Amino acid sequence: MNTSENMKARLLEYIEAFNADDAQRVVALFADEASIEDPVGTPVKQGKSEIAQFYGYATSLGARLELVAPPRGSHGSSATISFRVHTVMEGQPAHIDVTDVMDFDAAGKIVRMRAYWGRDDYHVAGGAA
Amino acid sequence: MNTSENMKARLLEYIEAFNADDAQRVVALFADEASIEDPVGTPVKQGKSEIAQFYGYATSLGARLELVAPPRGSHGSSATISFRVHTVMEGQPAHIDVTDVMDFDAAGKIVRMRAYWGRDDYHVAGGAA
Repeated sequence: MNTSENMKARLLEYIEAFNADDAQRVVALFADEASIEDPVGTPVKQGKSEIAQFYGYATSLGARLELVAPPRGSHGSSATISFRVHTVMEGQPAHIDVTDVMDFDAAGKIVRMRAYWGRDDYHVAGGAA
Repeated sequence: MNTSENMKARLLEYIEAFNADDAQRVVALFADEASIEDPVGTPVKQGKSEIAQFYGYATSLGARLELVAPPRGSHGSSATISFRVHTVMEGQPAHIDVTDVMDFDAAGKIVRMRAYWGRDDYHVAGGAA
């Protein structure tokens, strides 16, 4: 059953799998026809093939996701997770502040992922914003 | 212009106005035909009158919103804010962990608010979950 507790467990598994650079484990959390909008306001990726390509690249960069608050559920089939992405930009430490909103199907698979972050949520050490 | 910076400023103003128990100041952030789904998965409130009623009640409870991370923007017209609501439930201190997703119009008014929190994000001191 797709409870709030189950949704949150999937979100924590998402973080863990990402931090293990394990794209396959991340992609396994998604339904076949799922969509990804990352960041919100850019073109949507749709379906397992595009999702696998997206996470194959994303997990190849050595970025690490640091949880900043407990995941939030809802009274429906959605939940959110907020984290800081630690990465490197042109040799400098950088981080991106992100909140993901995920919608789930009855089987507990992610059917829609929307990542909220703007240009001003991307901070490079020593850089101007 | 509706920049990511402007959206975040409105979200911080939302928190500040709420914590001042100032329903009018909160409602002034919304467009006339705005909608509110709080929590996500429950019936939507629509229009200034329902929104005023909602915040009139919400700000009468003495609850306080504590920001837990910087607001996140997007590459579109949406932004998010995550906070902990400190309140009292049957004489006991309680808190609710919430993430709000807000969509803005070109004038910088909120047109849609969705509050993500589940029953298990509601914690009463000494209570069972």
